[in-house]
Amino acid sequence: MNKTPRIALAQINCTVGDIVGNGEKILSYIERGREKGADIIVFPEMAISGYPPEDLLLKAKFIKDNIAILDNIAGRCQGITAIIGFVDSDVKGVYNAAAVINGGKVQWVYHKIILPNYGVFDEKRYFRPGNICPTFALDGFIFGVNICEDIWHASGPAKLLTEDGGASLIINLNASPFHAGKHLERKKILAERVCETGAAIAYTNLVGGQDELVFDGGSMLMGSDGTMLAAAPHFEEALLIADLPQIETKKASLSQKPIALDGKIRAKGDLISAPRVAGLGPLEEIYSALVMGSRDYVEKNGFEGVIIGLSGGIDSALTAAVAVDALDPSRVTGVAMPSRYSSKGSVDDARALAENLGIKFHIIPIEPVYTALTSLLAPVFEGYEEDVTEENIQARVRGNILMAMSNKFGRMLLTTGNKSEVAVGYSTLYGDMAGGFNILKDVPKTLVYELSRFVNKRSGRELIPEDSITKPPSAELRPDQTDQDSLPPYDILDPILQSYVEEHKSSDEIIALGYEPELVKKIIRLVDLNEYKRRQAAPGIKITPTAFGRDRRMPIVNRYKELRNDNG
Amino acid sequence: MNKTPRIALAQINCTVGDIVGNGEKILSYIERGREKGADIIVFPEMAISGYPPEDLLLKAKFIKDNIAILDNIAGRCQGITAIIGFVDSDVKGVYNAAAVINGGKVQWVYHKIILPNYGVFDEKRYFRPGNICPTFALDGFIFGVNICEDIWHASGPAKLLTEDGGASLIINLNASPFHAGKHLERKKILAERVCETGAAIAYTNLVGGQDELVFDGGSMLMGSDGTMLAAAPHFEEALLIADLPQIETKKASLSQKPIALDGKIRAKGDLISAPRVAGLGPLEEIYSALVMGSRDYVEKNGFEGVIIGLSGGIDSALTAAVAVDALDPSRVTGVAMPSRYSSKGSVDDARALAENLGIKFHIIPIEPVYTALTSLLAPVFEGYEEDVTEENIQARVRGNILMAMSNKFGRMLLTTGNKSEVAVGYSTLYGDMAGGFNILKDVPKTLVYELSRFVNKRSGRELIPEDSITKPPSAELRPDQTDQDSLPPYDILDPILQSYVEEHKSSDEIIALGYEPELVKKIIRLVDLNEYKRRQAAPGIKITPTAFGRDRRMPIVNRYKELRNDNG
Repeated sequence: MNKTPRIALAQINCTVGDIVGNGEKILSYIERGREKGADIIVFPEMAISGYPPEDLLLKAKFIKDNIAILDNIAGRCQGITAIIGFVDSDVKGVYNAAAVINGGKVQWVYHKIILPNYGVFDEKRYFRPGNICPTFALDGFIFGVNICEDIWHASGPAKLLTEDGGASLIINLNASPFHAGKHLERKKILAERVCETGAAIAYTNLVGGQDELVFDGGSMLMGSDGTMLAAAPHFEEALLIADLPQIETKKASLSQKPIALDGKIRAKGDLISAPRVAGLGPLEEIYSALVMGSRDYVEKNGFEGVIIGLSGGIDSALTAAVAVDALDPSRVTGVAMPSRYSSKGSVDDARALAENLGIKFHIIPIEPVYTALTSLLAPVFEGYEEDVTEENIQARVRGNILMAMSNKFGRMLLTTGNKSEVAVGYSTLYGDMAGGFNILKDVPKTLVYELSRFVNKRSGRELIPEDSITKPPSAELRPDQTDQDSLPPYDILDPILQSYVEEHKSSDEIIALGYEPELVKKIIRLVDLNEYKRRQAAPGIKITPTAFGRDRRMPIVNRYKELRNDNG
Repeated sequence: MNKTPRIALAQINCTVGDIVGNGEKILSYIERGREKGADIIVFPEMAISGYPPEDLLLKAKFIKDNIAILDNIAGRCQGITAIIGFVDSDVKGVYNAAAVINGGKVQWVYHKIILPNYGVFDEKRYFRPGNICPTFALDGFIFGVNICEDIWHASGPAKLLTEDGGASLIINLNASPFHAGKHLERKKILAERVCETGAAIAYTNLVGGQDELVFDGGSMLMGSDGTMLAAAPHFEEALLIADLPQIETKKASLSQKPIALDGKIRAKGDLISAPRVAGLGPLEEIYSALVMGSRDYVEKNGFEGVIIGLSGGIDSALTAAVAVDALDPSRVTGVAMPSRYSSKGSVDDARALAENLGIKFHIIPIEPVYTALTSLLAPVFEGYEEDVTEENIQARVRGNILMAMSNKFGRMLLTTGNKSEVAVGYSTLYGDMAGGFNILKDVPKTLVYELSRFVNKRSGRELIPEDSITKPPSAELRPDQTDQDSLPPYDILDPILQSYVEEHKSSDEIIALGYEPELVKKIIRLVDLNEYKRRQAAPGIKITPTAFGRDRRMPIVNRYKELRNDNG
């Protein structure tokens, strides 16, 4: 009877570029893992560099420095085997790599074989693929190592590791970004690989926000029979420790001899009863992603706090609620900036929200500045009718006021446009679009409503004023304006946008779903036309399979109009 | 003695997405080529779709439509062999392809083998590489076809086409973006391939602007002995026609039989004396790129004209000069917006420039709006000192005024920041950074000076007022301010920026070039810190090997600080 190892999955929050801080965190987790009697401890993909470091990878010094940090860790890593993601390089190129550290030394470096280059991923821009996947033997226990995308393909290294290399366990290092429902996809993939290979899988994911991405954690140890042996929480750091149950070691003579590691697997008393944290509900996981993404953007960039323009509407209300959960009420400032077109209700709703959340609140009416600007421009605009220009002026005066407060107080301005607005350009560049970060950038308006009700339900009271949720949405930039003067109802707009933006469907395919042809064409035209606005938009948190930003790279000059089918 | 073909290189300006318009242009050039007696006519890489179409390539309907356009062209293409770049697809994937059209049919489709995925290129995001490169025989004349990057590598298909396929001519389709000096690199590469293979090369490049890229044309026919047989102009459409001189046909039995095409090579009278357009000087080629890039961005996006804030300084002056050359004086509006800190000279210089260029000119003093804004904010800012906030307010009031004029008159606002400013963030977000396009985005300040003198020299008069060129550069946002209060002289700043931004050098490497260590570290810190501003910056024209934008993809959250060498 072979001994089986105690595995520790270190689900840590790394910061891109902070090789020193990431290294210190890794060392502290190694120490904690050793204290808990773990034989093997696993860190996420590119834990030393953070993920994705993007063009930092083009700096030779950055790669050299991350290797120096790795070597320093290795020298201080005794009595435990550690698998750590980092950036490797040799004369041929740069690699997305995992170091196998044992006996105070880097014993092997695995190079990721399957490099994703779609969606938000650009790994072929930076990395050369590896082509070797040996296994390792620790006191007779055989395991293999691979990285993220490697495990997503049946033809990937999992098969070689188990068939040729005899691995009973595949250790898989990840930096897998969140979108709604992604974790179910991951579990399904792991179950497939377990089923095909008969090996257990130790899946370690990164956690934390990085620009537009959130890594949601949810590390798992799946047994060789497909049972979930241990599951870490989502959206927080964790050290998941579990003993691998006794399994039958493969007898067959292996076509590939494992690399022998030093050390003995310690005899254990009782098996550690590993936690199996339940998954989150659909709204809870999205809300948690928004909170973590916002917190990490603010903290990792070193901002003291945030400022939000509160219109009394639902987008700014939900943004403020997330900000308060991400930071602390004392670090969030709300500003209402009524104009001649603002209803009294709007200011009341904004004030009520600020009171409910316990945040600082200012009211700054924009009328004097609006009047000064329009008077100044009157001679130049003589003979022209009022139009959207005057609406934009109001939005930009507000942008000025908020940015001045941001500059003066050193707090970052949050912009509050939702995905539906961002898609069709229902927003003013340098006006309500001004700001360093947009929490709701990837949240369609219909989901903004659901999340707002979720916030109130969870807090057990009307945190977001009911009036903000139920009144007709309006930009209040001209008398009696509502969003539906210009746009279809959001429960029609949002599914059209999803089909077009996320699913790359053609107009004919969307019309075939039952939508009005003229409306579909109008929406598509608006999405295409407003690419120039999105190019200057603040970053925001990806929560859907296709977010605007690094996920969807459209040209601004773009004269594509679909050919009609009878025209082909 | 074999007949040799007359080759036409159609250096056309395609528009991304405009498959119908591009198709019509291709047909008109085919007609012109046939009229001139050409046997073979060659179009640029992805001429039907335009280049780069980016995520349009994820739309199945877009690919289907571009193939429909190709088939339509093929059916109307008689009496000439046409090689046309388009997007192909099959069950396995999508391809960057060249159709060989002959006898009214697509006879073969070549799939690009070497896919660039660095710098501005993301071809592995979209395309599967091809792996077959046959040759073609037209009336006994053997040629091969490949695409752009394919010709840049000695181990690429050029070798197979000539050694195995017996090609006397390699037809190479390109969408090769401009940067200063790029054309010399291309000629060097072609000469290497000719030298290795003994085949002539027909290099056809795209021309025109697409978002941040400019394709500079410069198509060439290089003879099998390395002589330049014909060279098209840069930065304009051209149909370059030349007869290939008599060459010895390879006798060796070929390991790969050429694909036979229909038709005879026509007997010619005198050989066409092909033009050999001289290359442009270093400043002339950059200036031409700025003009073409600006013109195409305005025209292809359908703007009626442009608006420029004229500070009296050199950046806005050069921007206006380029805009006038790109469009027409009647389509350019200049606006001076003096504040309490503006010198009288600044308004005079702006007015003189506008008069010299013959553009419409407004003076709109910002004082009343600035006063209204600062008064409104006074209670909120009570107890705080004046700081950069008040400077930014001025810049943002100007941004508001210009954007209001842009909205009212339907003219795009041009922003005027140069690369040195963009690099260190010496600019106000939503203020002087406001605008749809930034002509000088990739032009370092020292080059702004050179180009300004070039403009005056070329026009034979003081188009840009001498005072704008010689006075100390200043943002004029506080009393007696100059750029050098905050920044080193530009002739020190620019080479440091080039080392860091374009050459990815470390601080130690830059210091080793002889720069002050503290200064180098300060500049690097400024460049890193201001990534968030650049993320919201207007697009601009790439003229260097590494432009900000799609060329240099840095994270915003980025805590990398180089390890000191004694720390490794």
